[in-house]
Amino acid sequence: MRRIIATLSDFGLDDNYVGIMKGVMLKIDPDIEIVDLTHSVEPQNLIQAALVLHSAYKYFPLNTIFLCVVDPGVGSNREPIIVKTSQHIFVGPDNGVFSQVLRETGYEAIHRVTNENYFLNPISNTFHGRDIFAPVAAHIAKGVPLQEFGAQKDGYIVLTIPEAVLKDEEKKLYGEIIAIDRFGNLITNIEQEFVVDQSDHIRIHIKEHTIQGLADSYAQRSEGDLLAIIGSKGYLEISVNHGSAKKDLEVAIGEAVIVEYIIQKESHG
Amino acid sequence: MRRIIATLSDFGLDDNYVGIMKGVMLKIDPDIEIVDLTHSVEPQNLIQAALVLHSAYKYFPLNTIFLCVVDPGVGSNREPIIVKTSQHIFVGPDNGVFSQVLRETGYEAIHRVTNENYFLNPISNTFHGRDIFAPVAAHIAKGVPLQEFGAQKDGYIVLTIPEAVLKDEEKKLYGEIIAIDRFGNLITNIEQEFVVDQSDHIRIHIKEHTIQGLADSYAQRSEGDLLAIIGSKGYLEISVNHGSAKKDLEVAIGEAVIVEYIIQKESHG
Amino acid sequence: MRRIIATLSDFGLDDNYVGIMKGVMLKIDPDIEIVDLTHSVEPQNLIQAALVLHSAYKYFPLNTIFLCVVDPGVGSNREPIIVKTSQHIFVGPDNGVFSQVLRETGYEAIHRVTNENYFLNPISNTFHGRDIFAPVAAHIAKGVPLQEFGAQKDGYIVLTIPEAVLKDEEKKLYGEIIAIDRFGNLITNIEQEFVVDQSDHIRIHIKEHTIQGLADSYAQRSEGDLLAIIGSKGYLEISVNHGSAKKDLEVAIGEAVIVEYIIQKESHG
Repeated sequence: MRRIIATLSDFGLDDNYVGIMKGVMLKIDPDIEIVDLTHSVEPQNLIQAALVLHSAYKYFPLNTIFLCVVDPGVGSNREPIIVKTSQHIFVGPDNGVFSQVLRETGYEAIHRVTNENYFLNPISNTFHGRDIFAPVAAHIAKGVPLQEFGAQKDGYIVLTIPEAVLKDEEKKLYGEIIAIDRFGNLITNIEQEFVVDQSDHIRIHIKEHTIQGLADSYAQRSEGDLLAIIGSKGYLEISVNHGSAKKDLEVAIGEAVIVEYIIQKESHG
Repeated sequence: MRRIIATLSDFGLDDNYVGIMKGVMLKIDPDIEIVDLTHSVEPQNLIQAALVLHSAYKYFPLNTIFLCVVDPGVGSNREPIIVKTSQHIFVGPDNGVFSQVLRETGYEAIHRVTNENYFLNPISNTFHGRDIFAPVAAHIAKGVPLQEFGAQKDGYIVLTIPEAVLKDEEKKLYGEIIAIDRFGNLITNIEQEFVVDQSDHIRIHIKEHTIQGLADSYAQRSEGDLLAIIGSKGYLEISVNHGSAKKDLEVAIGEAVIVEYIIQKESHG
Repeated sequence: MRRIIATLSDFGLDDNYVGIMKGVMLKIDPDIEIVDLTHSVEPQNLIQAALVLHSAYKYFPLNTIFLCVVDPGVGSNREPIIVKTSQHIFVGPDNGVFSQVLRETGYEAIHRVTNENYFLNPISNTFHGRDIFAPVAAHIAKGVPLQEFGAQKDGYIVLTIPEAVLKDEEKKLYGEIIAIDRFGNLITNIEQEFVVDQSDHIRIHIKEHTIQGLADSYAQRSEGDLLAIIGSKGYLEISVNHGSAKKDLEVAIGEAVIVEYIIQKESHG
């Protein structure tokens, strides 16, 4: 069966970096199937890369190899690693890019990548995606056992990604925008568990705007209306039906989003 | 034989939405071959999507499955459908995205997509590309008969796409720009049949410019010259040799283009 | 074994031109594997296309077919050709796009492409990528012998790409920026041979800035520092660690870069 390699990077598609990595892999194992996750991660933005990987990995087949090259430390002493989880394999620099996934899945083994027999020769100082990570991913696809690449190690670099904070005394949840998509949808770091069953009892505040409760679909609101909805990533999102919340609200990543839990008055009767 | 799934959406490539749909499909049927038609349709622009699909579908192999996710009504009561024509299969929302193709090909059967056994579970309210359309396309590729997905229905939503209007009494054809490509070529809605054999007897008007007759190739005109030519989609296009008509003329989609048929004087002698 | 077709063009991914070429190829040979090198070459920029191809081709498997459609002369009398080198096959217009590669590899045979049996029918005047080059590439993948497409010819169009000039009397090497990547790295036309062993004895000048010697990695310099490094293409590059040299220096392609060889004083003692 064809082995799938899913690729993620900040290389963009305007240069030939991604195409070259694919050539390198196909030269080692012509039977792989390569899928692009995205190559438009903002240059060197590890948090974005970690979130992109986290919201995607579970939709891929068992044994997919994820090649993740967002690598601001290329050429330094940051370690190339292979991470094996119960379902997938991840190849890339140990710089936190895997930490959102591993927080969720744990891992079975992490190998340092040190065996130069599986690298291109010579190795450049600036493009380990081509010279180390892509060839290692292709050799894994071809069946090389993980211990061949290097010894196991414990632990991995963890990124600090802003988490929503619940303040019980205030009956408020303080979150923020952590991503914005092409449609101008604002993805927050507020997990659906905090809002999903309380739709009638919450108000959501962003800048000077207040949104009452959640919509079940974009179409449930009028065109142009601001709404809050559980997005496809499982987080609270702020959107505009047939429009762009990003444009209408003029917000950027980092903007505060506050969920206010409404204290219900007892009914007298 | 590998089944081909051609994908079209307005998701862009900056997010991981397209990559996720590919993961979902490969998880269901690892033997498919996925081809991107384009994912840069303007957000929620159904007319653009319908034109992009129409100018491309006939170049694909027999039995290609077209997965088309431009879906402004996601989560509303618009119907997910599968359309079988004599040559291909189309999967997407019934919102007009297929209507330019079906006007040309007709259809053999249209199925509502209602059988949740072929969907992901749970289904989000905002990303049916991932939860409904991609899994259905992959199950079709895998060989599930179309009637398994839902009952047949008659008819489909038709988009109103501006058509060129011939006014015989004026000897003029009134068209407009319906697309602009990366090179700044202006694609009109004037079909080649209206101009191709009359090259010496037409003048083409756009804004304050007049173009005499058609060019056989860009190179037939001097660099920087405005020209009219039968484009690769079979429609009249306005171009600048080695330049951009869009920039030179400062036009946008919707701009009027008029073909004037020249009344020929009889020759005396 | 699956035959690989690597594609390069200036079509961009916003239109369906690239998707259509893939459909055409899969219709002829459904077993090929198509890889995108890049489709973001600046419209009609042959020098950029030649450099992109040159820095990538050697990483691809033996017998890869490179389909290269940057074709400002489409519809004119420029010749479609197939070039066979000892390792690969190249298909495209004879306009110089292959000349950087062929300067390095030489060629075994060049065939004119004249046999219309292997073209689409009809042939448009504006999209030979779809009508000639893609079908020819797919037929080659399918096993059609090269002489079937047309007679051999000698020689090919050579592009003039600016070369760095060494002025011995001045102890200076005059180069320039020939490409800029997504990270803002400035790629020069100064080959590594001219600088690699002389790191301690060179100064690099660009605009009003002077850089002492070469860095071994980005991380060897402080964040925000301007540095010179041997890039992954084998040329001298100017970069900013964790930043963009393009932004910081406000430079464009064509900007002068001068390497000054420092005359070493003899040691006395």
